[in-house]
Amino acid sequence: MRQPLHFWVVGGDPRYRALAQALAQDGHTVHTYALGPDAVSASDALKDINSADCVILPLPVQKGEFLNAPLAASPPLLSQVLDALAPGQLCCGGRVSPELKREAEERGLLLADYFAREELAVANAVPTGEGAIQLAMEELPITLHSARVLLIGAGRLSKVLAHQLRGLGARVTVAARRWEDLAWAEVWGCGTERSDQLRGWLCAYDLIINTAPALLLGREELEDMKPECLVIDLASAPGGVDFAAARELGIKAIQALSLPGKVAPVTAALAIKTAIYHILTELGA
Amino acid sequence: MRQPLHFWVVGGDPRYRALAQALAQDGHTVHTYALGPDAVSASDALKDINSADCVILPLPVQKGEFLNAPLAASPPLLSQVLDALAPGQLCCGGRVSPELKREAEERGLLLADYFAREELAVANAVPTGEGAIQLAMEELPITLHSARVLLIGAGRLSKVLAHQLRGLGARVTVAARRWEDLAWAEVWGCGTERSDQLRGWLCAYDLIINTAPALLLGREELEDMKPECLVIDLASAPGGVDFAAARELGIKAIQALSLPGKVAPVTAALAIKTAIYHILTELGA
Amino acid sequence: MRQPLHFWVVGGDPRYRALAQALAQDGHTVHTYALGPDAVSASDALKDINSADCVILPLPVQKGEFLNAPLAASPPLLSQVLDALAPGQLCCGGRVSPELKREAEERGLLLADYFAREELAVANAVPTGEGAIQLAMEELPITLHSARVLLIGAGRLSKVLAHQLRGLGARVTVAARRWEDLAWAEVWGCGTERSDQLRGWLCAYDLIINTAPALLLGREELEDMKPECLVIDLASAPGGVDFAAARELGIKAIQALSLPGKVAPVTAALAIKTAIYHILTELGA
Amino acid sequence: MRQPLHFWVVGGDPRYRALAQALAQDGHTVHTYALGPDAVSASDALKDINSADCVILPLPVQKGEFLNAPLAASPPLLSQVLDALAPGQLCCGGRVSPELKREAEERGLLLADYFAREELAVANAVPTGEGAIQLAMEELPITLHSARVLLIGAGRLSKVLAHQLRGLGARVTVAARRWEDLAWAEVWGCGTERSDQLRGWLCAYDLIINTAPALLLGREELEDMKPECLVIDLASAPGGVDFAAARELGIKAIQALSLPGKVAPVTAALAIKTAIYHILTELGA
Repeated sequence: MRQPLHFWVVGGDPRYRALAQALAQDGHTVHTYALGPDAVSASDALKDINSADCVILPLPVQKGEFLNAPLAASPPLLSQVLDALAPGQLCCGGRVSPELKREAEERGLLLADYFAREELAVANAVPTGEGAIQLAMEELPITLHSARVLLIGAGRLSKVLAHQLRGLGARVTVAARRWEDLAWAEVWGCGTERSDQLRGWLCAYDLIINTAPALLLGREELEDMKPECLVIDLASAPGGVDFAAARELGIKAIQALSLPGKVAPVTAALAIKTAIYHILTELGA
Repeated sequence: MRQPLHFWVVGGDPRYRALAQALAQDGHTVHTYALGPDAVSASDALKDINSADCVILPLPVQKGEFLNAPLAASPPLLSQVLDALAPGQLCCGGRVSPELKREAEERGLLLADYFAREELAVANAVPTGEGAIQLAMEELPITLHSARVLLIGAGRLSKVLAHQLRGLGARVTVAARRWEDLAWAEVWGCGTERSDQLRGWLCAYDLIINTAPALLLGREELEDMKPECLVIDLASAPGGVDFAAARELGIKAIQALSLPGKVAPVTAALAIKTAIYHILTELGA
Repeated sequence: MRQPLHFWVVGGDPRYRALAQALAQDGHTVHTYALGPDAVSASDALKDINSADCVILPLPVQKGEFLNAPLAASPPLLSQVLDALAPGQLCCGGRVSPELKREAEERGLLLADYFAREELAVANAVPTGEGAIQLAMEELPITLHSARVLLIGAGRLSKVLAHQLRGLGARVTVAARRWEDLAWAEVWGCGTERSDQLRGWLCAYDLIINTAPALLLGREELEDMKPECLVIDLASAPGGVDFAAARELGIKAIQALSLPGKVAPVTAALAIKTAIYHILTELGA
Repeated sequence: MRQPLHFWVVGGDPRYRALAQALAQDGHTVHTYALGPDAVSASDALKDINSADCVILPLPVQKGEFLNAPLAASPPLLSQVLDALAPGQLCCGGRVSPELKREAEERGLLLADYFAREELAVANAVPTGEGAIQLAMEELPITLHSARVLLIGAGRLSKVLAHQLRGLGARVTVAARRWEDLAWAEVWGCGTERSDQLRGWLCAYDLIINTAPALLLGREELEDMKPECLVIDLASAPGGVDFAAARELGIKAIQALSLPGKVAPVTAALAIKTAIYHILTELGA
């Protein structure tokens, strides 16, 4: 990757201010737009964007037909931004929709999705895990040390949480379906349960964290839990918990989504920056 | 220790409700008083307290001349409680003042201070550490993973925090005065600094946690820190931070005291229970 | 899986004695053959083997045309064993060759390869890692605590070793090729290097452990190392180290293969047992 | 501490060669004597020793009336070395006997005992623990991962071993006498036993490591263990195990002493160097 490059950071939440700062600290030239109340109109502001080596769009890129720019006084239309770009120009956005991808191709733009990169997903597991731990600390009247915790799922997030929780002294059990996932849980010193046979094994837990995108915690599983058990659902909507049943049963169940940007926006920004650097390196930029 | 015993739990914050429950779950007979709005007067309520094998008083025992009983509608005078006890009766209280100790002796009471026991102090380091971590997670825009953390002091709390923070992936440095404390920090994989030579070495830290009861973070040390550094002072009042200077310099500094009862009342109650069991075992009760 | 079953354990090294014992301790009926000096001839010994619910063959199954039976006085021909089995009978073997697989099919045998199962490979990473650590402890004049260790590769073994070594206080760097593998190394608190750019970055390490099946440590990389650096190659033959060059340069390089059976035969036996139970569960046995 | 200083390293095992090297690498001037076959006589060799800023004597300093110098062709008398020193000269030795201390005082020498320093004892716990782990790995047919390990004693060594063993995935129980030591064991995630009530609780362990200087593992305790249990005694002689009874009962029990110099001589040398630097700093050298 050449040094220094000329970046534009356009739209996004406070993470993108941190991202712009971090890029500047690395020695790059950085312009921002729609990251606060801009003094000039979109057309004026964007007229030089076509000189950028890389234009960074937010995660997600758009909100309806507008650029996703919650900090801007009046977010521009996404089409305004795209119109200002030059054919062949490199843009990076997060959660690029198929429609946007097609539109970018039609305009001859090189649009890469940093949110689709595995290394970003791995890096985001850390703030997500810390966010879940913060929530658990705020809600539980016991320490995580010695707490009995069930982690449902065996993906990235579960792996990271198992280490974070054990690092705090929790007694962690992992519920998964595949033998190899259960073997990994044993390697890391966790107990194991079969995620398809949870009913009847849930009454011992103080904290149950779901990371699996499947409704594994239905009414019958919730009935199994002790009343003071806390349930945190990290799986993307609709999630893995019957929240209506939980309310009826008096089990506190919390759906916690998009934690990285909420609990650690600066760390989240650095992870996006790293993924963008990798994209640029791979493109020979 | 004989089983079951007859306990009275008198006064205290919500921890003492959890303590009464835990004693009952262990099979003991438990009476409570001044742990909520009592239906009867103090004199009526306390008339059987002299039959208890062990009377548990709160931490601290008193608030002025009254029993420390924030949950009671009208806390009784401490003297009312003491008057109701029989000579030779065993009581356990937390942070027993020299005056109270003398008064108990004059009445022929056997008054043990559970808060003076080292094993309780050790156990309390865990919820205190978790409380500090929760605070740091709530305040910092970065993850504790990869954060540069300075722990000042080398006592129980610092040891526990070093492990908790490293368990979350933080880069921990311990500042202490004695060579042996620095040797322990190296054993645990932490960096080391001399706590009497902090000035000039503080600009790299994202989080500084003080556990030493000495004013080590004065104006000059605070001027050294980067503006986004968070300072948490866990040392008992007056603490180790010049808070006025911190305010002027725009450094966020938080004094966090008595964390166990606040962040993990149930765990704190269990630790008190264990200490009381040890007292009873040592007394051959 | 039904309980109890009738197993035959036929051939193998001392691990298979431990396996037979462990099966018996789980309540199964267990016959062994060719695990020591047998009193009777192969034909006599094997005449009841066709009654077994599951016949366990060793890892690897064969040595030329003989059963792999180093503890037997005279190992039988593999064909003798196969002849004694009944069509439809279930056998489990380790590292089943394509020829053997074909032959078993022709005889109507149900031959499963436990060594091909991912959960066994995961479980075996633990004794392999401990074997490498034992070797390093035996060879190095320094502690692993504080030692600078480079792990090349990012597979199962590298993941397990990273945790084991960090658990002992080593400073671990992981060299890998994929961004996501480097992201995981950072999550676990390791430093990172690009495995395709090792030259010039090797002089700092006290211990280099290769787990990648590629010649990454050639003469030029070896020349980079300090003379007292220890190299352990865990990659299956031909391995990842130019051993001739290492000898010439005076760098101690050790090829360590098949560690689980050598350093922890009982643990290795239990892992094989677990994999066989999974096979039986999946087959509805 | 001034830089550079002029050191003499006189006598000792291979550790002291490593120590001399490390001092030289730090920029000091270093002379050695009796660390190999010396070309000249003691009187010739030692005639300039009185110019040294610090003379380093081995651990232990003497062997009978001779300097402890196993690498020398003919170790000199200790008195020869002392005679060569100038009044007021600073010497550091390990395990200085009261007689030697008195003799040094009579000669006006400043003789400090580095082995009496707590920071050296702490640092030495790491190689001692690794040595015990190496032994256990060599002897046991199971992995330390998942092994049930009992640590007897709650001193430095037990603390370090608890972390090392848990870092490898062992299930560790600590047996101690004081409540506060048991509280610490719980903080670190270990099980707890009372060390005065071991009988009847020993049959579950795969490995028992004694660090307490008291005969806690007598015949009756040994009879409790399972036959394949390994016992490692790290307590200084006479140790804590009835070795004769162990032999009779077929329990493998190993006494392992002075491990740092054996398993990690270079690390041990660095720890001695650090302790000597602290002595020099405290003396204002």
